[in-house]
Amino acid sequence: MTENVAVIGVGHSKFGLRRDVNMAELCWESIQPALTSAGVTPKDIDFFVVGNAGMWSSEAAIPALLAEYADLAPKGSMRVEAACATGSAAIRVAYSTIKSGLADLVLVAGVEKMQESPNPNVIELIGRFGSYFWEFENFGLTFPGYYAMHGTAYMAKYGATEEDFARVAVKNHYYGAKNPYAQFQKEIDIETVMKSPYIAWPFKLFDCSPITDGSACIILASESKVKELGIDEKVWILGQGVGTGTANLSRREDFTSLASARYAAEQAYRMAGIDPENPAKYLDGANVHDCFTAPEIIAYEDLKFCKRGEGVQLIRDEQTYIGGKIPVNVDGGLKAKGHPIGATGISQAVEAYKQLLQKAEPGRQAEIKEGRWLAHNVGGTGHFTYVTIYGLEKL
Amino acid sequence: MTENVAVIGVGHSKFGLRRDVNMAELCWESIQPALTSAGVTPKDIDFFVVGNAGMWSSEAAIPALLAEYADLAPKGSMRVEAACATGSAAIRVAYSTIKSGLADLVLVAGVEKMQESPNPNVIELIGRFGSYFWEFENFGLTFPGYYAMHGTAYMAKYGATEEDFARVAVKNHYYGAKNPYAQFQKEIDIETVMKSPYIAWPFKLFDCSPITDGSACIILASESKVKELGIDEKVWILGQGVGTGTANLSRREDFTSLASARYAAEQAYRMAGIDPENPAKYLDGANVHDCFTAPEIIAYEDLKFCKRGEGVQLIRDEQTYIGGKIPVNVDGGLKAKGHPIGATGISQAVEAYKQLLQKAEPGRQAEIKEGRWLAHNVGGTGHFTYVTIYGLEKL
Repeated sequence: MTENVAVIGVGHSKFGLRRDVNMAELCWESIQPALTSAGVTPKDIDFFVVGNAGMWSSEAAIPALLAEYADLAPKGSMRVEAACATGSAAIRVAYSTIKSGLADLVLVAGVEKMQESPNPNVIELIGRFGSYFWEFENFGLTFPGYYAMHGTAYMAKYGATEEDFARVAVKNHYYGAKNPYAQFQKEIDIETVMKSPYIAWPFKLFDCSPITDGSACIILASESKVKELGIDEKVWILGQGVGTGTANLSRREDFTSLASARYAAEQAYRMAGIDPENPAKYLDGANVHDCFTAPEIIAYEDLKFCKRGEGVQLIRDEQTYIGGKIPVNVDGGLKAKGHPIGATGISQAVEAYKQLLQKAEPGRQAEIKEGRWLAHNVGGTGHFTYVTIYGLEKL
Repeated sequence: MTENVAVIGVGHSKFGLRRDVNMAELCWESIQPALTSAGVTPKDIDFFVVGNAGMWSSEAAIPALLAEYADLAPKGSMRVEAACATGSAAIRVAYSTIKSGLADLVLVAGVEKMQESPNPNVIELIGRFGSYFWEFENFGLTFPGYYAMHGTAYMAKYGATEEDFARVAVKNHYYGAKNPYAQFQKEIDIETVMKSPYIAWPFKLFDCSPITDGSACIILASESKVKELGIDEKVWILGQGVGTGTANLSRREDFTSLASARYAAEQAYRMAGIDPENPAKYLDGANVHDCFTAPEIIAYEDLKFCKRGEGVQLIRDEQTYIGGKIPVNVDGGLKAKGHPIGATGISQAVEAYKQLLQKAEPGRQAEIKEGRWLAHNVGGTGHFTYVTIYGLEKL
C-alpha cells in the first residue's frame, strides 16, 4: 500500500507583465504563501521540483536559484518540462516521490518569465513545441495556427461558429474579472471578441490566451506527514493520468479530439473511482486547458462532460458557468488568468484547493457537493496531456 | 513496502560529433538495444522519461518526438533537467514512478545534440547553469573558469599540481581507448596534457571534457514485472541521494568540496546499507563526474573513497585504476567517453549494468566481488548532485 498524497498549502503570484521582479522574487511570491498556508518552513521540505519551460528567459538552473533564495539547500531538486503541461508534470514528480516513500514533504513551484523575449520571438519559441522539423520549420506553423486547424475541423464537423468560440472567452473573462491574480480582470462581450483582429482564422485576438509572467506553488505531503503536522485544510490527489501524442499532427486521426487527453482522462477517472462515462456527476468543477477558445470545447468532450459534438451546446447553454452542469475555468482559465507555461498546471492545483475548501474569491466560488475537482493540462496540441483529480476525501 | 526497481535493459549510442543523425535517430541508437536487451517492445512500456538540457539544439518536445518515432504513444512522458545531472534526474523520476506503483516498466532516454550550436556559443549556454545574473553575467565565468577555481583551491590547500590533474586525464583516456562508444579512443600521456593550450588555469585542453552528441537509454522494471518477464540479467537500484547547492559560488563555504555531493552520498549510502565512513569496501567501482580533471579528485573525497586531501594521492598511486582500491571511470568518464549532458547520468547507469554483469569490453572489466557500483553525477558546480548505487542483489 503506497502513501496517500495531499496538497497542504498553496500560493499564487499576480499573473501578467512582471518586469518589476526578477525570477527568484517572482517565485517567492507564490512560495512564501504556500509555506505559510501549509504551516511549514523551508527546512521542513524534503525535496522540491520546479516546472519551467524557460526557453524565453535567460536564467537557467532555477532549482539552484531557489535553493539559495528560498533557503531550500541542500535538499534535492530538479526541473521538469512537458511543454504547456509542465506544471502538471512537476506535480507528478512530487506525487510519485511521496507515494514511493522517497520523501514526505515536497514543494512544487512553477514559474515563467515569458515577457523577457520580445514578441514575436516568444511565439516562435513556443512554436517549437509542435513538430519541430516538419510542421514548424517547413510550414511555419505556430500555436495559433496549430489550434486553428482544430477549431476549423470542429466547426466543419459539428457546426460551431466563431460566435460560439467567443462565448468561451466571454465566460472566462467574466470569472477572470473576479480573480485578483488574473492577468486580465475585465469582462468582455461577444462583440469584443468578434471585432478583435484575426490572429489565425477562426481565432481572433480575444480567442487567444496571453503571454504571461507568473508563478504558482503547492506543498504536497504524505498522509503520515499530514497526521504528524495535524493539518486540517488539505485536498488529496485522487488520481492522475498522463498521455503523449505524436509530434506530427499529420499522424493524428482527427483534429476534433486529442487522443492523449482521452487516454489521460481514462486513467485519472479509473484511479479516482469516477465513472468514466458520466464524470461530471462526480465533479464540482474543472479547470481545462483553454490556451485558445475552441480547445476548451474540445476538452469538454475529451473529458466526457458531454457527448462528442455536444461541447458547443454546453457553452451555448451556459452549462459551464457556476450553477450549470459543471463549472469550468471559473478562475478565468488560461484565457483571462494568463498562461505562464510552467506555472499553469500548478495554478490549476491552487484553484482546485481553493474551490474544494471554499476559499475562492466572491462571485466565483462553485458549489461544493461531491468534493472533487478536475485539472486538465495540455502541452503542445495534445503532445502531452495530464489530467489530475483532487478531492476532499481520500480514497 | 514499496517496489524494488531494477535496470533490465541498456543501450548506448556512439558519443562524439553526430551530424550524421537527427535527434530521433540518435535516440533510437540507444533505445533499440535497450528494448532488445530487456526483451520488451515499445507497447510494453508504461511511461517514459527524457533527460535533455537541450538549450543548444533546435528540437523541443523530445518525448513527443519519441512517442512517434519509437512508437511509444499514447503512454505518458515528460522531460527533466538538472544541468549536467539531467540523466540521473530522469532516472530518479522513473525510479519513483515505479516505486510508487504508478508504473511497472519505464523507459529512460537521455540525449543531447550539443554540436548543433557552434563554439563558443555552446560554452556560453552551458555557463548559464552557474549563477546566471551574478557570476555568469557580471564576471563572464563559464564552466572551465568555475571549476578552475575549485582546482586552484584544491592545489593551494593540499599541494596538488597540474601534473596530478593530468594523471586523471591519462587514466580516463586509457580506458576510453577500450570503449567503442567513447568520443576519444586514444591513449594520452602526461606530456600530452601539459603541452596542450590553457583554457582556464590550471586547466588545459586535455583537462576538459568535450562537447558531445549522444544518447543512452535504460529500461527500469518493478520487481513484480521482473518476475513476470522472467528477467535474468538485471541490476537493482539500491539507493539514490540528491542534493542542491546555492546558485552563487560566493555563498559556498569551501571550493575543495561540494556540499550537495556529500549530502547526496550520505543519503545513497544509508539507503543502500553501505557504511558511509568506508564505502569503497562495499563497491566494485564507480563512475564520477569528471567534467574536468580536478573534480574527479574532489569526488573521491566527497564520496569518502579516501580522507579529505588524500584524493590526489589516490590518483598518484593509481588506486582508481582496475586492480586498485576502487576503479573509477573505467569507461573513459566524461573526459574521454564524452559528456552529452542529458545522456551522461544514463550512460553511467549503462556502465554500472555492464560492469556488474561483467559485460564490459576487454581490458576495462573491473573485478566484481561486492556486486555494487556507484554513479556520481553533478550539475553545475554542485548546483545539483545525484548519487546512485546499483547492485546485483536487491536489498
